[in-house]
Amino acid sequence: MPLPTIDDIHEAAARIKPWLHRTPVLTSSSLNELVAAHLWFKCENFQKTGAFKARGATNAVFQLDEAEAKRGVATHSSGNHGAALSLAARWRGTPVHVVMPENSSAVKLRAVSAYGGKIVTCAPTVASREETLARVLQETGAVYIPPYNHPQIIAGQGTAALELLEEVPELNIVMAPVGGGGLLSGTALTVSALRPEIKTWGAEPLMASDAFQSLQSGQIMPVQSTTTIADGLRTSLGDLTFAVIQKHVAKILTVNEEDIVRAMRLFWERMKLVVEPSGAVPLAAVMAHKEELAGKRVGLILSGGNVDLDRLPWNA
Amino acid sequence: MPLPTIDDIHEAAARIKPWLHRTPVLTSSSLNELVAAHLWFKCENFQKTGAFKARGATNAVFQLDEAEAKRGVATHSSGNHGAALSLAARWRGTPVHVVMPENSSAVKLRAVSAYGGKIVTCAPTVASREETLARVLQETGAVYIPPYNHPQIIAGQGTAALELLEEVPELNIVMAPVGGGGLLSGTALTVSALRPEIKTWGAEPLMASDAFQSLQSGQIMPVQSTTTIADGLRTSLGDLTFAVIQKHVAKILTVNEEDIVRAMRLFWERMKLVVEPSGAVPLAAVMAHKEELAGKRVGLILSGGNVDLDRLPWNA
Repeated sequence: MPLPTIDDIHEAAARIKPWLHRTPVLTSSSLNELVAAHLWFKCENFQKTGAFKARGATNAVFQLDEAEAKRGVATHSSGNHGAALSLAARWRGTPVHVVMPENSSAVKLRAVSAYGGKIVTCAPTVASREETLARVLQETGAVYIPPYNHPQIIAGQGTAALELLEEVPELNIVMAPVGGGGLLSGTALTVSALRPEIKTWGAEPLMASDAFQSLQSGQIMPVQSTTTIADGLRTSLGDLTFAVIQKHVAKILTVNEEDIVRAMRLFWERMKLVVEPSGAVPLAAVMAHKEELAGKRVGLILSGGNVDLDRLPWNA
Repeated sequence: MPLPTIDDIHEAAARIKPWLHRTPVLTSSSLNELVAAHLWFKCENFQKTGAFKARGATNAVFQLDEAEAKRGVATHSSGNHGAALSLAARWRGTPVHVVMPENSSAVKLRAVSAYGGKIVTCAPTVASREETLARVLQETGAVYIPPYNHPQIIAGQGTAALELLEEVPELNIVMAPVGGGGLLSGTALTVSALRPEIKTWGAEPLMASDAFQSLQSGQIMPVQSTTTIADGLRTSLGDLTFAVIQKHVAKILTVNEEDIVRAMRLFWERMKLVVEPSGAVPLAAVMAHKEELAGKRVGLILSGGNVDLDRLPWNA
């Protein structure tokens, strides 16, 4: 499949506009002081479904033709993509099937159900997930909308950076977390096309530093089984997201678990924002690389805010 | 002392503007659905110091004359007012003394210290607090800036409603929580002067329903010792705040503790906003009085977001 272009991202922005929030960009003088840099936070925790994932899913679902829309869509997801696809499909009036591991958290199962997604459980292995998805696709004729390695998904995720650049033109760096790479590749496409002098950096947990290793080695290094608290970032890159990241991402910073929890708590305490661990990874990276970033103007994509309030890391 | 007028509130808005945030007004389609009404939330949890208290304190501190500013300011506070006064005094370059009960939470003591307030501890009784404050005032010659029963404080707190009305003109009701009544009386003054057809309602915990009782009986009924989770609302009305509330507040709704915690959690889960229990009381009131408010357009002042993250009510 061809990589998306900046035109695809502009078209995605127009397509999703009637359905999604233009999320605010917030700042915090207390956090700026703490890191001795200037930070702008693109608050995708305020996005529909509580995460940027609604952008890509909505962009994909509204590009189905009528026959496809009648058959429906399907995906596998243990988190935010399943909820996002379910909501977008509800808006379009399209059936939606979400393959989820049977050990998914109750909170996540409930979110998908609440948006009208039909849940099909599988064993918590890649093999079972792929078999189950294949069966669902065969039985229903649904269109597969993958969580990140897809041009329409990447283009949709790139619209968050589009809004950020419109609102804060004078940046040195834009930073996004990287799991499968949908958000980071979309961000890099937008930034490199519109403002090539601004660098795009990724941030990921040390416990799932596959993107960092992939960039180093020049080939996709799959993530090893990991229990990083940043549960949205436990996935490996795909060929499309890797191709974009290789071309347009200058650097990937890694952070330890303690720093992720500390950054997450700073969002809650200083900015009164509920941010999930994955969304706190870029701030953790800024804090862990203060010297390098001193005085810089950095835009951070705060990717989501879906947290189980009964299981907060500082109450563990 | 004379009650503040709408002119005082307009002047307060101009005076505090260089120092404070114009906080955003947020909405949530999911909460609107839940209560079958249209809600607008004025997010004072995003205000400097994490609460609306910064408005009144800043308004008062910047009205000191040069001689007063040299001598300093003093107050008693177990919470947000002490932090707000400390920050405003720091901006003005004025010494600040805060009398706090010796059993104040570590979080609150730290906040006052961090903003440069000099803490003077007292026993956790009204008598000790008053004695200690009197001694501080005598020794330092500082100007006493009370937490709510003061025209400059009331005028400052009224600026939040000013911004809300500018942003959302078509409201039926504006609702604010009521403890000492600074926020509610300031809100009522603004709303009644600018948009007399809009009603101002108060909301308070059933466990500290002194404002409700005071309105009923026509005289100030002091709050009984209470352990309501809404710790910002444990205080009694003052003569100034009561006079305004009697004249301009149409109704006070009361809510139980369970509903406060439920409303607080809804802010966190659905809106990704860190809101303190006191700030959740108006939403709790809307939920507990759904029939009465069905279809109405209601502005709610979300008063603050200062919460001890190590002691959340749903992890108790």
